[in-house]
Amino acid sequence: MPARTPVDTEEIGYDELALAARNHGMPLEALRYDITPPGLHYTLVHYDIPWLDERDWRLSVTGLVTAPGEFSLDDLRALPSRTVRITMECAGNGRARLRPRPVSQPWLVEAVGTAEWTGVPLARVLGEIGMARGAASVVFTGADHGTERGVEQDYQRGLSLEDALNEEVLLAYEMNGAPLPPQHGYPLRLIVPGWYGMTNVKWLRAIELTEAPFTGFQMLAYCERQDADDPGEPVTRINVRALMVPPGMPDFMSRARIVRPGPLTLTGRAWSGHAPVTRVLVSTDDCRTWQPATLTEGGSRWAWRGWTFDWTATPGRHVLAVRATDAAGDTQPIGQRWNRGGFANNAVHRVALACIP
Amino acid sequence: MPARTPVDTEEIGYDELALAARNHGMPLEALRYDITPPGLHYTLVHYDIPWLDERDWRLSVTGLVTAPGEFSLDDLRALPSRTVRITMECAGNGRARLRPRPVSQPWLVEAVGTAEWTGVPLARVLGEIGMARGAASVVFTGADHGTERGVEQDYQRGLSLEDALNEEVLLAYEMNGAPLPPQHGYPLRLIVPGWYGMTNVKWLRAIELTEAPFTGFQMLAYCERQDADDPGEPVTRINVRALMVPPGMPDFMSRARIVRPGPLTLTGRAWSGHAPVTRVLVSTDDCRTWQPATLTEGGSRWAWRGWTFDWTATPGRHVLAVRATDAAGDTQPIGQRWNRGGFANNAVHRVALACIP
Repeated sequence: MPARTPVDTEEIGYDELALAARNHGMPLEALRYDITPPGLHYTLVHYDIPWLDERDWRLSVTGLVTAPGEFSLDDLRALPSRTVRITMECAGNGRARLRPRPVSQPWLVEAVGTAEWTGVPLARVLGEIGMARGAASVVFTGADHGTERGVEQDYQRGLSLEDALNEEVLLAYEMNGAPLPPQHGYPLRLIVPGWYGMTNVKWLRAIELTEAPFTGFQMLAYCERQDADDPGEPVTRINVRALMVPPGMPDFMSRARIVRPGPLTLTGRAWSGHAPVTRVLVSTDDCRTWQPATLTEGGSRWAWRGWTFDWTATPGRHVLAVRATDAAGDTQPIGQRWNRGGFANNAVHRVALACIP
Repeated sequence: MPARTPVDTEEIGYDELALAARNHGMPLEALRYDITPPGLHYTLVHYDIPWLDERDWRLSVTGLVTAPGEFSLDDLRALPSRTVRITMECAGNGRARLRPRPVSQPWLVEAVGTAEWTGVPLARVLGEIGMARGAASVVFTGADHGTERGVEQDYQRGLSLEDALNEEVLLAYEMNGAPLPPQHGYPLRLIVPGWYGMTNVKWLRAIELTEAPFTGFQMLAYCERQDADDPGEPVTRINVRALMVPPGMPDFMSRARIVRPGPLTLTGRAWSGHAPVTRVLVSTDDCRTWQPATLTEGGSRWAWRGWTFDWTATPGRHVLAVRATDAAGDTQPIGQRWNRGGFANNAVHRVALACIP
């Protein structure tokens, strides 16, 4: 019998399954690609994918601006563009491995992907419009619409003006050199390098400059809380994390891994939205001892780095693990860091396998 | 409180979740597209997505042939090509709605998509190679490798020579005008219009002509059985089915639907691998009474047809349903048709909603 990845057996509800059937992660063998191919990048859609045509679509920019304005996609394409390669991860990645399990989109560890996004810097668009005195915050509104905990809403998120004016914050109209796929925000998506996915508002239709920080539903929802009364800490940048391409071959149903005895090279990727990844450690004895992996491609500042580690598999059961550290000094915890929403989890990735002659 | 789609609450295991996190269906709002955009077409990978490069890849053709041969992708591209638009559906679509639920990839109803596949007719390639006397069956081998119920294997399926020589059976190297995405079989995939997805072998690397029908693992696995001793009926062509774009807006967590009172047009698609769709009926009272929908685009012989139905929503709860019939005289059952593998299920699609002023 192949070994099983160590998760317990608390079962998943139909609500969670309905989300898992719509949204999807990146199969971990796709960690091999520098740029995640179309359709393999993770995607999470809060409501429905809106039915939009760029010919009818406009971006409105209002609020504390010199003069409110509207942009067509051609207007935005006419402005100087920039391309940024980023690794994006869902704030709920790893949620379904927490105990007790927060009930929402039940991600295991696959909610990640790396893409090149092309668009116009937001700072440039705000420069065209002109910011009025007192503007300190920006509200971004997507075209997707639905209810969440009884609140009917367009999907909306806010950023401080300081974070929004970073020159790498883009209004992106291309993903990997092609128009955005519908599920990734066609025709326009906010891209904020280093931040969890919820910040990167899809199907962007409106930008409003305000004096006060935005405190709408999604700002309150994406907070780390220990209990319902906890005001919570906002979820912002992506915590350091490494993942491994599961070695060997899988069993179809259980996804358990089987390898043959002998030398093999473990590979994977590591990233952080806080600071560059500086170290990746691998354990072949379920986190008891650790040895350094070799860091390979540097990638861009915001994209994952590759790592490799040579190992000789011996017959028996093994649990491999990988753990990254970034230049901010953060290291992945071995145990789970729990909060009610299951956000910003970055426990080490463990892969159980059976080595069979 | 929004209404809930009527499923019971038997829970899903972690094995099933691990499959649901990797594989994905087509969000039902994407029924709006004639051709499913990249990344929204359903995909199911039995083992791992193989890491292939067309420069190293070859297709071998062996067995009862005049002379065994090997084809590079350029060799195949040099032969006359054909493009076929087909609706493809997983044989396990609807499995997770069955009671008792067969444990495997837990599809609700989203395991479908429509694409245009371009490639060389298989008959042409077999003509180049030359078939030997006695050849009556064809075995197709993919590059994906793993174990299933203890059997280590490359993914393999067989077809009778008669089915294989249909001029619309393709060795496809393009999907929607671009090279195949990795998860859809790059660099080459067998395409058999009208048959469930498992027949359309991905990452195709070998074709063998034989005298006897192929009886390997996947031929035995994909059978409809009532109990373990039942020899079973092979799963072949796609049963008639219609799906509906869920109207109104969703609740994030439950996917329950909410509409406003007033007139609206219900839309969706219908298809069958046996014969053209001839009739689509809609019920707005949970299958008690039925009225004809209007069939729209004819599509190709193998692609879904559109349908529309005008309805005036009144305050309260409603269960909508849609039911198709094909020219072979088959009509979708209202109740579940159960078998151990959860294959070829095509119960009517029901959508519960709350109409709220």
